[in-house]
Amino acid sequence: MKPMSPSELEAQLRDIGARRYHRLHPFHVLLHGGQCTKGQVQAWALNRYYYQAMIPVKDASLIARCNESSLRREWRRRLVDHDGESEGDGGIARWLKLTDGLGLDRDYVVSLAGLLPATRFAVEAYVHFVRENTLLEAIASSLTELFSPQIIDERLAGMLKSYDFVSADTLAYFSARPPLAQRDSDFALAYVKHHARTPDTQHAVLKALEFKCDVLWAMLDGLYHAYVAPKHLPPGAFVPKDWSSV
Amino acid sequence: MKPMSPSELEAQLRDIGARRYHRLHPFHVLLHGGQCTKGQVQAWALNRYYYQAMIPVKDASLIARCNESSLRREWRRRLVDHDGESEGDGGIARWLKLTDGLGLDRDYVVSLAGLLPATRFAVEAYVHFVRENTLLEAIASSLTELFSPQIIDERLAGMLKSYDFVSADTLAYFSARPPLAQRDSDFALAYVKHHARTPDTQHAVLKALEFKCDVLWAMLDGLYHAYVAPKHLPPGAFVPKDWSSV
Repeated sequence: MKPMSPSELEAQLRDIGARRYHRLHPFHVLLHGGQCTKGQVQAWALNRYYYQAMIPVKDASLIARCNESSLRREWRRRLVDHDGESEGDGGIARWLKLTDGLGLDRDYVVSLAGLLPATRFAVEAYVHFVRENTLLEAIASSLTELFSPQIIDERLAGMLKSYDFVSADTLAYFSARPPLAQRDSDFALAYVKHHARTPDTQHAVLKALEFKCDVLWAMLDGLYHAYVAPKHLPPGAFVPKDWSSV
Repeated sequence: MKPMSPSELEAQLRDIGARRYHRLHPFHVLLHGGQCTKGQVQAWALNRYYYQAMIPVKDASLIARCNESSLRREWRRRLVDHDGESEGDGGIARWLKLTDGLGLDRDYVVSLAGLLPATRFAVEAYVHFVRENTLLEAIASSLTELFSPQIIDERLAGMLKSYDFVSADTLAYFSARPPLAQRDSDFALAYVKHHARTPDTQHAVLKALEFKCDVLWAMLDGLYHAYVAPKHLPPGAFVPKDWSSV
């Protein structure tokens, strides 16, 4: 078996995104199309908070495995993006502006008390993946960022148009993300193309991106099952105030 | 805050089972009530295979954390139960008799290629829980076995009565389990009652059992979402032959 060229590998990675990125999930179709109730948007933001909160833990786990100062320095930017330079700054703080704006109690959100187990397990699978697989696979698993600028544009436009309970201010997380995602995914893609040169490592890299698509997809499966249809709330999960009309 | 007595702790543990054990899940109601299609029973057995296959990995992870020979020896019985004394013996092999009997290709089942990501993430969350929490919590998380003899009786009776594609032979896994589950849960319950003597450790033990109930529950949520309603198959998941009628 011959290895692919770097550009063939990139094409295969992009093909995974075209087929498996969570932009295609029915929950996102509802969310971006303005068909969610406020309670459903709350449930999405509350659950997605845990993903946001664990991203720097994932990134620090990755940095902890790097032997090169240059790579650690590059990846460190992601910690800065998410944790900010001071209290109230950074991606996690901006996500909490969204949950605040949606009327969720901040202590409740941060406590994770209402989290779906499906969210918890998917997010933690991502952290464990990064800790337990090769550094190359860990880096490749970040490549869903390649596809995020598009979903963020759709989300911003769709949500601002459709929901009177969100504003440009509460959606600040999304307006800040695209240039950072672009910078990060440019770096990770170049790294993967440079380092995955054998059939085995190329296969592993493709599997890593599929895995990460599965993580994002499973989070939305969990939301759909609990809050859209058939609305089977797992024991202990967040109950929206408008639950009867959810 | 005063600690509970051991019997009060046991009562609280049993109360968690009464409220959160997966016997109450809508998927089990369908499965045991004879309302599943063959494809749905296949999907359940295929996904549950991964849980069975990882139980000895979980148990070995627990043994690896024990400093006492007596506890390791006691827990080692579980490895014997699941892995058997020779090829074709033990719980995992009996589970594969079930998937064989349901007409699933054994190589396909064992490859995990058709597994729902929700199953993978839930099962792996269990293994990681046992590795990363205290030994007491790890042992407490096994206590869903307290409630399993009842569900197994219901399952055996319900499935044998309702499905012509299963037999007492293919369901041999279940007829073998109850005495083992009883022995194991007697030991784990006595251990937990003896060692959880402070409010903090008692709280941790109760949370560990809730976590484990969440694992089993989330596996059925994933099955329900993919194979019952709204039947959103995640990319790559097992497609039953009778999918159009599932």
